[in-house]
Amino acid sequence: MNQYCFGVDLGGTTVKIGLFDPQGSVLEKWEIPTRTDDNGNNILPDIAAAILGKMQEMGITKDSVIGVGIGVPGPVDDDGVIHKAVNLGWGVMNINEVLGGLLQMPVKAGNDANVAALGEMWCGGGKGYNNMVLATLGTGVGGGIIVNGKMITGATGAGGEIGHIHIVDDEPDTCGCGNHGCLEQYGSATGVVRLASRKLAACDDASVLREAQANGELSAKAVFDAVKAGDQLACEVAEEFGMYLGKGLAAIACVVNPEIFVLGGGVSKAGEILCEYVSKYYKKYVFHGCRDAKFALATLGNDAGIYGAAKLVLE
Amino acid sequence: MNQYCFGVDLGGTTVKIGLFDPQGSVLEKWEIPTRTDDNGNNILPDIAAAILGKMQEMGITKDSVIGVGIGVPGPVDDDGVIHKAVNLGWGVMNINEVLGGLLQMPVKAGNDANVAALGEMWCGGGKGYNNMVLATLGTGVGGGIIVNGKMITGATGAGGEIGHIHIVDDEPDTCGCGNHGCLEQYGSATGVVRLASRKLAACDDASVLREAQANGELSAKAVFDAVKAGDQLACEVAEEFGMYLGKGLAAIACVVNPEIFVLGGGVSKAGEILCEYVSKYYKKYVFHGCRDAKFALATLGNDAGIYGAAKLVLE
Repeated sequence: MNQYCFGVDLGGTTVKIGLFDPQGSVLEKWEIPTRTDDNGNNILPDIAAAILGKMQEMGITKDSVIGVGIGVPGPVDDDGVIHKAVNLGWGVMNINEVLGGLLQMPVKAGNDANVAALGEMWCGGGKGYNNMVLATLGTGVGGGIIVNGKMITGATGAGGEIGHIHIVDDEPDTCGCGNHGCLEQYGSATGVVRLASRKLAACDDASVLREAQANGELSAKAVFDAVKAGDQLACEVAEEFGMYLGKGLAAIACVVNPEIFVLGGGVSKAGEILCEYVSKYYKKYVFHGCRDAKFALATLGNDAGIYGAAKLVLE
Repeated sequence: MNQYCFGVDLGGTTVKIGLFDPQGSVLEKWEIPTRTDDNGNNILPDIAAAILGKMQEMGITKDSVIGVGIGVPGPVDDDGVIHKAVNLGWGVMNINEVLGGLLQMPVKAGNDANVAALGEMWCGGGKGYNNMVLATLGTGVGGGIIVNGKMITGATGAGGEIGHIHIVDDEPDTCGCGNHGCLEQYGSATGVVRLASRKLAACDDASVLREAQANGELSAKAVFDAVKAGDQLACEVAEEFGMYLGKGLAAIACVVNPEIFVLGGGVSKAGEILCEYVSKYYKKYVFHGCRDAKFALATLGNDAGIYGAAKLVLE
């Protein structure tokens, strides 16, 4: 009998769902809207209906489904309890029990950033490794820590919150978390723009980034495009960005000593050059016993969440 | 039938050995010298002879021994392979196999700092917790990370090398690891003395520490004794020390989000006041989701290693 598992990536506007075989091939992939009205009470029933509908459509029986994994945007403990998900309107809820009750199949929930790391380990940039750190460089810096093939959830579901490692002492801007000087204030897409804006303001050097800024088009992409075109000021911004991220990842290495760092999120579209800037400073700051860690780009893009969620139930 | 396990703490000059029951009571505890001559070839045979001798003396049979755990001063991977232990004269060796062959009983080896953390979790300052970080503040800063009751060894045995988290950018002194600005340059016993010496040199304020320094008695103990006596300069040193350690432990929390930090090593003899200085700055720098982590002092002292080694074989 064929066996299957489902991976669900629950976002604030869309739910992505994937049907997988246990070897990591995606057989079907589709999306439904996330209905956040009525305190998000429709979200899990909608997901259950979508999965049960797909099973009926494809003639898949419950006893051939190993389980349903789900990544959610908030801290989730090892029992599947989410303590709050503001984006979804949820309070405290045991997702494993509620969705499992609706589906009458095993359900396992995890934090979306951690689950994405599991996906990249299973079928993406970290394939073949058991000890991996995913750093997702998007609007913020998210993270997922995998040790011996398992996600580190942490005591309160805040394992892998690497974007909030304190890096700079005298930062005037406030981070989304309320602190000052967090890694994500420099190592994210927003952070690249912050570093570039400050450098542009601090000097008169010519740079294609001045025009981009004047046109309201200063972005992480614009900076790394300028780096590739040899723009000196952009290169200095990339060095600074690499220095902050290298320091942060070096601190992580002194804790969990991974085999590989996988860099994902929007900023990672810059390509291999990103790994070069980050690993240069990583090697400078890290303990010698961790110096040989590899760097790779994430490869699953927005699908990392459904892959990782499916892998959750295969553990 | 009664069951037993042995815990061995292999140091550069002495081997400590403990006989335990599976509930964590130590039944016998003794020491033998570490013979590091002849490339350390006698060390494991000496340990085997000591254990087998004790078993004969007490009428303990092999089938009642669950196993022998051993903590060693160097990086050890999950299979028990040590890659180098300069202090012992060892090159690459599979300790589980070699000592297991001599004893004809199950053997499990781990790094001494990681194993001490396991001991403090089992029967010491971290008892009752499954997610714990031990920071050993001695000559250097060692660490052990416990996640879901298990030690994090890391890809190359460098998991928990928290003393080498980069904390300060412009440190002129070189750390033992070759880098500059590592946590252990400020958060260790040596680090407290460094901070105190610099403060004494930078000002003319009266302090009992000036006399201690003149007498060659400036130590971490002298600093914390002076703090308790209300010495203003010593209090400023303790604040600075707490700030560096608080920052370092906050970075660790953003990775593994422990329930509790246990502070051990010589500096921890300062008592509860140490936890106060460190947790004050920890709370300042850490991600809000990790802010409620507890702080406690290690309680097993030099016995943490034998406790943790015994626990290794009970996992």
